[in-house]
Amino acid sequence: MDLTQQSPDELAAAADEINQTYESLRGRNLALDMTRGKPAPDQLDLSDEILTIVGPGEAHGEDGTDYRNYGILAGIPEAKAFFAEYMEVATSEIVVGGNSSLTLMYDAMAGGMLFGMPGGDGPWKDAGPVKFICPVPGYDRHFAICERLGLEMLMVPMTADGPDVDAVEALAADPAVKGMWCVPKYSNPSGETYSDATVDRLAAMPVAAPDFRVFWDNAYHMHHLGAGPARVKNLLAACKDAGNPERALMFGSTSKVTHPGAGIAVIAASETNIADAKKKMFFSTIGPDKINQLRHVRFFKDMAGLQAHMDKQAAIIGPKFEAVNEALERRLAGKGIATWTKPEGGYFVSVDVVDGCAAEVIRLAGEAGVKLTPAGSTWPLGEDPNDRNIRLAPTMPSVEEVRAAMEAFCTCVEMACVAKLRDAG
Amino acid sequence: MDLTQQSPDELAAAADEINQTYESLRGRNLALDMTRGKPAPDQLDLSDEILTIVGPGEAHGEDGTDYRNYGILAGIPEAKAFFAEYMEVATSEIVVGGNSSLTLMYDAMAGGMLFGMPGGDGPWKDAGPVKFICPVPGYDRHFAICERLGLEMLMVPMTADGPDVDAVEALAADPAVKGMWCVPKYSNPSGETYSDATVDRLAAMPVAAPDFRVFWDNAYHMHHLGAGPARVKNLLAACKDAGNPERALMFGSTSKVTHPGAGIAVIAASETNIADAKKKMFFSTIGPDKINQLRHVRFFKDMAGLQAHMDKQAAIIGPKFEAVNEALERRLAGKGIATWTKPEGGYFVSVDVVDGCAAEVIRLAGEAGVKLTPAGSTWPLGEDPNDRNIRLAPTMPSVEEVRAAMEAFCTCVEMACVAKLRDAG
Repeated sequence: MDLTQQSPDELAAAADEINQTYESLRGRNLALDMTRGKPAPDQLDLSDEILTIVGPGEAHGEDGTDYRNYGILAGIPEAKAFFAEYMEVATSEIVVGGNSSLTLMYDAMAGGMLFGMPGGDGPWKDAGPVKFICPVPGYDRHFAICERLGLEMLMVPMTADGPDVDAVEALAADPAVKGMWCVPKYSNPSGETYSDATVDRLAAMPVAAPDFRVFWDNAYHMHHLGAGPARVKNLLAACKDAGNPERALMFGSTSKVTHPGAGIAVIAASETNIADAKKKMFFSTIGPDKINQLRHVRFFKDMAGLQAHMDKQAAIIGPKFEAVNEALERRLAGKGIATWTKPEGGYFVSVDVVDGCAAEVIRLAGEAGVKLTPAGSTWPLGEDPNDRNIRLAPTMPSVEEVRAAMEAFCTCVEMACVAKLRDAG
Repeated sequence: MDLTQQSPDELAAAADEINQTYESLRGRNLALDMTRGKPAPDQLDLSDEILTIVGPGEAHGEDGTDYRNYGILAGIPEAKAFFAEYMEVATSEIVVGGNSSLTLMYDAMAGGMLFGMPGGDGPWKDAGPVKFICPVPGYDRHFAICERLGLEMLMVPMTADGPDVDAVEALAADPAVKGMWCVPKYSNPSGETYSDATVDRLAAMPVAAPDFRVFWDNAYHMHHLGAGPARVKNLLAACKDAGNPERALMFGSTSKVTHPGAGIAVIAASETNIADAKKKMFFSTIGPDKINQLRHVRFFKDMAGLQAHMDKQAAIIGPKFEAVNEALERRLAGKGIATWTKPEGGYFVSVDVVDGCAAEVIRLAGEAGVKLTPAGSTWPLGEDPNDRNIRLAPTMPSVEEVRAAMEAFCTCVEMACVAKLRDAG
C-alpha cells in the first residue's frame, strides 16, 4: 500500500492505527541505542588474546630493539610491514601511529592549515578561504574537522559508484579547493564501494590547487558482512599512474578490528607525503605506543589471520544487518515513504524518509526509547537540507534488540511520514 | 691547579699530556651514548608486570564500563582519580590522555595559535607576532614547539630558585607574550627545583596578555635520585589563591616511570581550561587508550605503590649520577674550566665549560666514541650564545659505561678548554 497515493480519509485511518502502535511502544520502556558504530561485546571478545600477547621479556623487535623504550617515530618495522600489506603500499609509504586514525586525519588537515602540504604554496591559512569537497551523506567527524579548522564544505552527492565525479571535477577547478573526503569502501553511512572508474577519475582529474589532497579514509577495508571484503582500486597506485603521486592521503585503523581506542592507526601515501607527515609529527611526539603495535602484529600474525578474524566479526554482525533489512522490507517496502541501503560491509544502514521527516522520526524514536544518530549528523554543519537522511548503527545491540529497535523505528517512520503526507494533502 | 692561571709554557705542557690521553682514548673504540634521557633496560624491567596486568575479562571499569570499546574522551575515572592525586588537583581538573605529554603540550600551544585560550581575544595567530618566555638552559623539545609554531622565544636565565622572575615579569608586560615554559622540579637540564617564592610570584605577577599561560611540565615529579622527591608548591593552587586560576597548564606523564612510549600523559588545570582542552580534543580523537590507563592504575595500585616504584628507579640511576659527579670532581674540580650541577632528581647533569668550548668538547667526545647531546640543544633555535652548556644524560648506560664515558668526557673538556686558553693567552 503506497501511502503517498492514499486519500485523506485513508491516511487518517492509517494514522490512528500507527499512533496506537506507537503508544503501546512507549509503554514498553525500551532502552535501545543505535547511535554510533560501536562493536558489540562479543566482537571485542574475539580480540581478548591481544591483551596479554606481549608479556615480560617479549617486547623486543626482530632486530633486538627494545620497544619498551623511547623512539621510532614512524612505527616499528614489524607493524610497518604488516600495515603496508594491509594498505597495499610499500613500507616506505606508511606511518604506523597511535590509537586513532581520526587524530591522523585531524593532524593532516591542521598541518595543511598551519604549514601547508608538499607541492603547495605554503600554509593554507595564509591563502584566504579554504574549501573542501564533502560527499553527502558522510561521516560527521570528517565534517567536524573541516568546520573546526574553518574550511568551507562543498557538498557533492553520492552515487552507487562513489561521489559524483563530474561535480567533484567542477569544484576542483577552484584553487581554493584543497581536497576532498572519501570513505571508499562501505561508505559511511550509505555503504557504497567506489568503482574502479571513480578511483581512476579522482586520481587523474585536473585540479587547480597544486596541493590538492584526497583524504581517503579506508575505515572499513576488511569489514564485510559475510560475503568477503569488496575490492577497491588502490588510490595511491592510481595517482602514481596518473602522474599525481602526492594526491593520495590514505588512512586506516584497527578500531573496529581489535579493541576501539586501544588499536593502531596508519597513514599511507607517497614517500614525499610520508616524509612531510614525519616532519610534522616530530614536533608533537617522541613516538607511538610500540608495544601496542607489536601486540597487533603478533595477534594477527599475517594477512590471512586478519581476514579470518574479520570473518568472525562478520558472523556476529551480519545477522544484525539482516534483521535491519528484514524489518525495513516487511514494514516499509512499497509504502513510498522510505528507501534504504543494503550494505555488504561497514557499520551502517542509511535510510531516506519523506523530505522533512528525518528529525521527527528520530525524535519519536527517542521518546519511545530508541536512540538514533541525531538528525543532520551525516551532513556538513549537521544540516541535512532535505531533513531526509537517518543513519542506523546496528552493531552494538544484540540481534533481539535490533529487531525490537527496528519495529519501533519503522513505526516512527510511518507515523512521521503519514503526518507529513496529511499536512501536505 | 687552576688552568686559567697557568703560563703559556705550563699550558703547552698540559696540552701535550691531555692530547696523549685523548689519543689513547681514541684507540679504545668506545661506543657510549649519553645523548637522551632514556631509562636503562633494568629500569624498564621494573614495570614488566604492567604488560599482562589487564587480561581477558579484566578490561572493565569499577562501574562495569567496557574499556575495550570507544569513548571516554577525558580518561577513565580510575585513572583520573589516580593522576589527580599525582598532580595534586581535583578529578574535575584533569584530562588523562594518550602516551605522550609532548603531544598534550604541542596540542595546547597549537590550540592557542589556532583557536585561542579561555579569557583571551581569539586565536593567537590572528594577533600578530606571539612571544613565549623560555628559561635557559631548557628542554629542546619545548623550544622546538615554539619554533615550529612561529613563536618568538624570549630567554630568561635560570637561578637556583627557578627562572629569574624579575626578568620574567619585565617580559610579561608585553601583551604579545602569551606564556612561558617551566620544568619546575629537577629542571631539564640544570636540575633546579623551583622555590615556593618563585611559584608564588609566577602565579601572582601582573601579565599583559589576558590569556597568559604557564606551561608547567612536571616531567620529573617523583624522579628523585635517592633522597625522596622534592616538594614543589602547587602552581594551580597558587594561581587560584592569586586570582589567576586560568594561568596554570600543568603536564605530567609516566614516560620515565613505566615504559616510555607506552605510558600515560595528563594535563591538569582549572575546570575552565579543562573544558577548553576537552572541546579542542573532541575534534581529533574519540578517546585515549583506556586499557593502557587501566594497566597503569592496576600496576601502581596507589600513590604509595608509585613512590615505592620510583624508589627502585632511584636505586638504579642514583649510582650513575654519583659516577658522573665523582669523575667531574676528581678530574675537573679547581681547574677553572668547568662548573656542573649535582641534581637531586631528574635525568640530567648540566655542565658549563669555558665559553666557546661546548661544541668542541662534544665534537671531540664524538670522535672518541662518546655521543653527547648536540651543542646548543638546550637553547632556543639550538644556539647557545656562549657555546658553554653541555647536557649529560647518564641513565641509559651502565655504571661502568658511565665511568668510561666520563673519563673521556673530562679529557675532552680539558683538551678543548686548554686549547681555548692557549688561543686567548
